[in-house]
Amino acid sequence: MLKKTLRGVVPPMVTPLLNNDTLDVKGTERLVDHLLKGEVAGLFLLGTTGEGTNLSPVLRDELVSRVCSQVAGRVPVLVGVSDTDFSESLRLAKRAAELGASAVVAAAPFYFALGQMELVAYYTRLAERQPLPVFLYNMPSHVKVMLDIETVRVLARNPKIFGIKDSSANIAYFNNIRRIKNERASFSVFMGPDEALGEAVLLGADGGVCSGANLFPRLFVDLWRAAQACNIDRVRELQERVLRVDEAVYTMGRDATRYVKGLKCALNLMGFVTTR
Amino acid sequence: MLKKTLRGVVPPMVTPLLNNDTLDVKGTERLVDHLLKGEVAGLFLLGTTGEGTNLSPVLRDELVSRVCSQVAGRVPVLVGVSDTDFSESLRLAKRAAELGASAVVAAAPFYFALGQMELVAYYTRLAERQPLPVFLYNMPSHVKVMLDIETVRVLARNPKIFGIKDSSANIAYFNNIRRIKNERASFSVFMGPDEALGEAVLLGADGGVCSGANLFPRLFVDLWRAAQACNIDRVRELQERVLRVDEAVYTMGRDATRYVKGLKCALNLMGFVTTR
Amino acid sequence: MLKKTLRGVVPPMVTPLLNNDTLDVKGTERLVDHLLKGEVAGLFLLGTTGEGTNLSPVLRDELVSRVCSQVAGRVPVLVGVSDTDFSESLRLAKRAAELGASAVVAAAPFYFALGQMELVAYYTRLAERQPLPVFLYNMPSHVKVMLDIETVRVLARNPKIFGIKDSSANIAYFNNIRRIKNERASFSVFMGPDEALGEAVLLGADGGVCSGANLFPRLFVDLWRAAQACNIDRVRELQERVLRVDEAVYTMGRDATRYVKGLKCALNLMGFVTTR
Amino acid sequence: MLKKTLRGVVPPMVTPLLNNDTLDVKGTERLVDHLLKGEVAGLFLLGTTGEGTNLSPVLRDELVSRVCSQVAGRVPVLVGVSDTDFSESLRLAKRAAELGASAVVAAAPFYFALGQMELVAYYTRLAERQPLPVFLYNMPSHVKVMLDIETVRVLARNPKIFGIKDSSANIAYFNNIRRIKNERASFSVFMGPDEALGEAVLLGADGGVCSGANLFPRLFVDLWRAAQACNIDRVRELQERVLRVDEAVYTMGRDATRYVKGLKCALNLMGFVTTR
Repeated sequence: MLKKTLRGVVPPMVTPLLNNDTLDVKGTERLVDHLLKGEVAGLFLLGTTGEGTNLSPVLRDELVSRVCSQVAGRVPVLVGVSDTDFSESLRLAKRAAELGASAVVAAAPFYFALGQMELVAYYTRLAERQPLPVFLYNMPSHVKVMLDIETVRVLARNPKIFGIKDSSANIAYFNNIRRIKNERASFSVFMGPDEALGEAVLLGADGGVCSGANLFPRLFVDLWRAAQACNIDRVRELQERVLRVDEAVYTMGRDATRYVKGLKCALNLMGFVTTR
Repeated sequence: MLKKTLRGVVPPMVTPLLNNDTLDVKGTERLVDHLLKGEVAGLFLLGTTGEGTNLSPVLRDELVSRVCSQVAGRVPVLVGVSDTDFSESLRLAKRAAELGASAVVAAAPFYFALGQMELVAYYTRLAERQPLPVFLYNMPSHVKVMLDIETVRVLARNPKIFGIKDSSANIAYFNNIRRIKNERASFSVFMGPDEALGEAVLLGADGGVCSGANLFPRLFVDLWRAAQACNIDRVRELQERVLRVDEAVYTMGRDATRYVKGLKCALNLMGFVTTR
Repeated sequence: MLKKTLRGVVPPMVTPLLNNDTLDVKGTERLVDHLLKGEVAGLFLLGTTGEGTNLSPVLRDELVSRVCSQVAGRVPVLVGVSDTDFSESLRLAKRAAELGASAVVAAAPFYFALGQMELVAYYTRLAERQPLPVFLYNMPSHVKVMLDIETVRVLARNPKIFGIKDSSANIAYFNNIRRIKNERASFSVFMGPDEALGEAVLLGADGGVCSGANLFPRLFVDLWRAAQACNIDRVRELQERVLRVDEAVYTMGRDATRYVKGLKCALNLMGFVTTR
Repeated sequence: MLKKTLRGVVPPMVTPLLNNDTLDVKGTERLVDHLLKGEVAGLFLLGTTGEGTNLSPVLRDELVSRVCSQVAGRVPVLVGVSDTDFSESLRLAKRAAELGASAVVAAAPFYFALGQMELVAYYTRLAERQPLPVFLYNMPSHVKVMLDIETVRVLARNPKIFGIKDSSANIAYFNNIRRIKNERASFSVFMGPDEALGEAVLLGADGGVCSGANLFPRLFVDLWRAAQACNIDRVRELQERVLRVDEAVYTMGRDATRYVKGLKCALNLMGFVTTR
């Protein structure tokens, strides 16, 4: 269970696979080691980058179990429970709690696009019906709806809801969400896109859920620290490196899946995971 | 297993529930009876209207099992297997085959939006890796991508892929899809929106997957027959009735879920299902 | 001024140009002749196909003037006045009235996307402040908003607003718009996309604003007549020909401008217009 | 004509109107005075906030003429020439040059959505065929297309194209656009949304085209200066004030026009402009 405000770099961990139904156990261990050595503030399993929605419940459980064991409490483990089947979200959340995870992360249900009042009901129930604290996940490109600023503000009054990852890339929206910290300082506000970690933290955000940190965790941690220290020159320099990495890794092809493919390909070339 | 070209009205059956995790068994029986008495050409379980993506695997199995038993081969039972987890789609398809279902229906995976080549690969694998014939399901509002006309044309060459339901409501698209029947007459082309069943069939489509047929199956069957018989006056009259029903049932509220809510509310008022 | 309900095929006339600022006068004459020989029910100038929004006021006036002179009352001439500058819409409408045009056609303003109440105000003012009757034009792909069914219903009570062209291609929407004829039979409802002229008219629509009629007016007029006569076999046959034409002419490239380019290229190959 | 790299706060000036066709001359004078006293780096006339696309050519000319006279070279005046009629864009640009404007700003044509190659052609011609330097304007919500990063990179090699205003609010995009300054340092990169001026400038952007600066120019200029000086605490404090202003002024109603309405209403209450 989370003890304090989550801050820092929390990579949305890639899920190493041997094939569609088989975890790459060795690759997973190497990747977790790599990320912890990079001094990340936590691990986020089964997010978009982790292809959580595409994995079977059996695989989800195995991943959470293995990673929680390996991490052994050194950093919080957050588990993505986004699913169109609410009972699976609850099941996975409860299992994650038993396995030692610290929190769950949920994008809104994504087949039917919910209205704002339905989103409030959804997250409130998710918070009530399983033991872990809940991290909101705004992901309009995949889910088809934005969590309205007012919706997040209402949900942030729920003590079991402790933060939000915003992957909209909309900076006007993000800065308004960050203002919720004026009302509840402990509400964690995380930037989704790698490309804006530096400035988000400079202006007061808590951290980032940076896909690229799978490859170079230390680069992102250094950037976060530079931003925390208000070292602008260093932020500019490191943010530029992040932009170069992303350009190299994420821009192959046109499909929406290209960034996961790019990441997995790069991790394979770097020797962390097998080819799938 | 389907023996011949699917034609007629195939309602996307509402899933009666007592609560999120419990099937309304009596309601389901009454609804199946009601539909069969209405002389529908088949039943489509676990589609969008059937909230398939929102139900647990256990509930999915129970529904398919009970309905297949009750139908006992009188009409084909089609089972929606749309899921972001491919292993669940395969599992459900195999189970449906064992239980006596005739075919599976699949919208494209809906968290990541696939590219057209990825869609070809997805449906080809789905056809290969489970025993039942596959019905394509174009549902851009929920899935975020259209199946390109060329994509459908390529897939229609696969003998295990026997038809498509198009819920785009785009009539220019639909009429181009219908032209695939020029190349393969047995390829079933079904109209999604209730509001266009009549003209679709007049122009050569095979049928409709009409949500409103849950309420008034005979109205839609009569409309289909009138269109088959090229009785235009009757088509106009019945299509007008369909439009009035839809206006009454589907237009409460603004949320994307409103048509399912309206349908379930109406079915409840008509005494077929309980309130959930 | 329109004397009676507009019905039939009204091509959105291509604007033949020698260059960006010069009308192809000979080409325009040949094209008008070609269309009138095809027995069209009217001409619609300066629509989307006519590139109305892209032409200077001087060119717009010249085109309207020349075509009205040449047509000399044989069929109604409708003039597109869609513009983000309302004073230009009014100016052009007044000029068109002087030159003998029968009506104006207006898509909603297209830089700012208007809300539904703003759309009611816009069309009401347009009807009030210039002499010609107004034809609504629903064009969401270019304008970013749909005219809600309720908005059209309200506007249809205005005696100066006499009809609508729906280019959404959404057949559920179109069929609901057509129901407005139940309240006011003289309200003209026209199908935009070529691909659905036949069934629209079979079910009770008044006609089509068919781009392809620039090439083969008689094909579309024959289709309209077959639909009027409820000759389904003939509708199917002719609609199939329309689909083949459109596939050949409209599918080069990916840009939104491709259908105008395809049309102009085809008209050039057929000897009606010069190359631009 | 611009002499050096444009940097600082350049408000997109509201156009004070007595009615749809009449400039509020006194209001315009007061507003220009107010902005110049606020030490803005330039004025941008006839942008989205200035309702440029909605004004007649006569009004556009009058506004440019009066403002250029009043400003008398104290700061650069940029003139929006976005139009679907290319000849009007050229005419207005030439007139603006005669009247003493320093540059033109152009969003992409907005009725037909252009493809990326068409956008390159459009901006290249605009640069060639009129005397003033060109400022790109990325405005996907109104124009329906993004200027691809690669498109901007190509256009930035044209010496007559000297910068870009990005109103997408997409921070990942913006930061990639900013990288073009690595290749051409004098290419001005401006943030559109008020809400992100501070961080954009902290990270290396040149300035902002801030709507809210119509109300409180000095607030935005102070924010820009704080960011230039890397005074983070001050940036946070002033950015927070900007967010409060925007929340108060921009959030009335749901229509896309609401922010202009809010601005004009606020300017009226502050005594700068009359009610329209």
